[in-house]
Amino acid sequence: MRGFARRSTVAEAIGWLDSRVRRLGDERTALREAGGRVLAHDVASGVDVPGFVRAMMDGFAVRAADTIGASPYNRLPLNVVGESMPGRPFAGRAGPGLAVRIMTGAPLPEGADAVLPVELVEIQGDFIFAQGEVSPEKHIGRIGEDISAGSAVLSAGRRLRPQDIGVLSSIGAAEVVVVRRPRARIVVTGNELLPVGSQPAGARIVDSNGPMLEALVVRDGGLPIHPGIVPDEPGAILAALRSDADLVLVSGGSSVGQEDLAPSLLAEHGELAIHGLAMRPSRPTGMGMLDGRPVFLLPGNPVSCLCAYDFFAGRATRVLGGRSPEWPYRRLRASLKRKASSTIGRLDYLRVRCDGGLVEPLSIGGASLLSSTTRADGFVLIPEESEGYPAGTQVEVFLYD
Amino acid sequence: MRGFARRSTVAEAIGWLDSRVRRLGDERTALREAGGRVLAHDVASGVDVPGFVRAMMDGFAVRAADTIGASPYNRLPLNVVGESMPGRPFAGRAGPGLAVRIMTGAPLPEGADAVLPVELVEIQGDFIFAQGEVSPEKHIGRIGEDISAGSAVLSAGRRLRPQDIGVLSSIGAAEVVVVRRPRARIVVTGNELLPVGSQPAGARIVDSNGPMLEALVVRDGGLPIHPGIVPDEPGAILAALRSDADLVLVSGGSSVGQEDLAPSLLAEHGELAIHGLAMRPSRPTGMGMLDGRPVFLLPGNPVSCLCAYDFFAGRATRVLGGRSPEWPYRRLRASLKRKASSTIGRLDYLRVRCDGGLVEPLSIGGASLLSSTTRADGFVLIPEESEGYPAGTQVEVFLYD
Repeated sequence: MRGFARRSTVAEAIGWLDSRVRRLGDERTALREAGGRVLAHDVASGVDVPGFVRAMMDGFAVRAADTIGASPYNRLPLNVVGESMPGRPFAGRAGPGLAVRIMTGAPLPEGADAVLPVELVEIQGDFIFAQGEVSPEKHIGRIGEDISAGSAVLSAGRRLRPQDIGVLSSIGAAEVVVVRRPRARIVVTGNELLPVGSQPAGARIVDSNGPMLEALVVRDGGLPIHPGIVPDEPGAILAALRSDADLVLVSGGSSVGQEDLAPSLLAEHGELAIHGLAMRPSRPTGMGMLDGRPVFLLPGNPVSCLCAYDFFAGRATRVLGGRSPEWPYRRLRASLKRKASSTIGRLDYLRVRCDGGLVEPLSIGGASLLSSTTRADGFVLIPEESEGYPAGTQVEVFLYD
Repeated sequence: MRGFARRSTVAEAIGWLDSRVRRLGDERTALREAGGRVLAHDVASGVDVPGFVRAMMDGFAVRAADTIGASPYNRLPLNVVGESMPGRPFAGRAGPGLAVRIMTGAPLPEGADAVLPVELVEIQGDFIFAQGEVSPEKHIGRIGEDISAGSAVLSAGRRLRPQDIGVLSSIGAAEVVVVRRPRARIVVTGNELLPVGSQPAGARIVDSNGPMLEALVVRDGGLPIHPGIVPDEPGAILAALRSDADLVLVSGGSSVGQEDLAPSLLAEHGELAIHGLAMRPSRPTGMGMLDGRPVFLLPGNPVSCLCAYDFFAGRATRVLGGRSPEWPYRRLRASLKRKASSTIGRLDYLRVRCDGGLVEPLSIGGASLLSSTTRADGFVLIPEESEGYPAGTQVEVFLYD
């Protein structure tokens, strides 16, 4: 077995990736399905919201001038000539000496310029007695006070929040133009693998990387395509690498042994830009381009696969889909319960548990034990230039989930 | 218009909610669809993973005893009698003086007890020369070292992470039993409202709370049901309150005016447990039970609707679905750019922008301006017992999205 000619640093690999991976194009989607999607263009409003002057309190629409001098000791009568309800405006005109009963959100009748709150009024049949003054424009909402016609509402790149969907609905959007979801072809190789849903038997194990990668791609806003295990055979792997997708994630056969077919196929038919990384786990990770789409060669060991996905393939998925390249993990600062060792020149991805404010590195074996990542609460990175940290060091934990 | 008889504190309302809302029952789902779902039961493994002794390095399966004394100066010959590949084990037996070429992950042949790494070997035809020693069990993974049969794998209540899906796949799970997704009936009332996708026109505005609530429910793991605007009419509202769902979210008509039908319907036909809250916005929020399901009366003002959803209805959605009751918002500590005022006895929900490490309260009008929540980066809470904070105070910001 040959070794890697030269190991790239994580920063070099990310630099390459960022230079080659660009946001995908657009598609239209129904507004009601658009929560969490990424807006492709700036959105401006074509309308005023609200499109009419509205009451901001329950009370009576009046001319403010008619209330001048009103007080509990100087009750001024006004004739109630109708009502304005939300969606059912008063058909007539208010005017001097007149009042129109009005509810919050209802259109202010023509001729009125303020709302006299119900608390300042005594009602007697068709008359009210104003017991206080209101100034013009009092308790009314002006046209466009929420959103004015022509104004910018949301910017391109925005990941739509629930309230954004509400605002877009209020300006009359039925659809929105969003960044297309990246289609990620998952190519799982390995003659020892049984498809998800099988019982492990004899010398065969069940594919765990495939369904894990599917869930990771969904988490990062992509659409996974994983039609099944691909035989360890050059023609089958090359065909899978060339399948119609926006990026390709290969799991297994990524190292430099003679059974590791994917790197040489990628080098021969496309570009193997990075192969071998100065990190642990995930050293035998590769990446490159084929037919204009990024290809990630992820190690078959499941912990390495998870780690390499998160560092590289996940970043590509997020960037293609218009999301932030950053990890979706919450962060926590806490101190190490015991020493964490590393080697200079290599980035270490250390699974940890967080227990009572202390961070405990899990003393677990190799990258083959996926259960170590389900027992862990998250991970800590030890950068290339560090030999590790003594107990008590404050570290940043990236929390899984 | 009557006022609220008595305003409940936010803590009282949450206390009521937590006493009445319980996790829903279970359902089966395909493992590949289970990312992000909540596990209903503890899961133990029925199998060992791996189910066989495997090589952890590429090299040769040998009897460790045959390598005793091997060094570059004392090369010990072994006869290579076959190979063991992942999924394609060596059919025969290894034994004294014999070696079997083996790849990482492949089953260790009967008779061998260690893997001699390829780096410690010189290959000549059908023979290898060991140039170093290995001890028994060296470079092999034992049966069940990832997961042993009968051991606990994941606990009930776990929100399934991508790696959990991988682990469940590796133990042969085709389906998992998860907590059912809460079906949330969204009841939007208001004669002034047009359905989502309409253009606002005249005195009518487009429903923004409905699609916003749909996106919120999806975010919190629920299934929204929002078949359309419900007429402001007691029979229609009561029928909607009684529709088949796990919880009901009513938007609009939640206050104490005569047009506010939902509170009296709930009081008459079920239980109106809380009505009127000591908070701003969202004062006219109510909640109770009808036909055994929680009902939330959310104010029609969209900012109040968002806030009341997040405090109460969202919590219920998350708890019903087996998730943590806590907000899904990331948090940030930063200092106030300017003073934030409040009133003792009332919790304030203050929309803020975060700008260069400083938190700026948005000086924006009432709860009717939904665009204020799209311009904000998040919110700050000022508790009941506080009159507010001076500029420079360190506050916790809950970040939208």
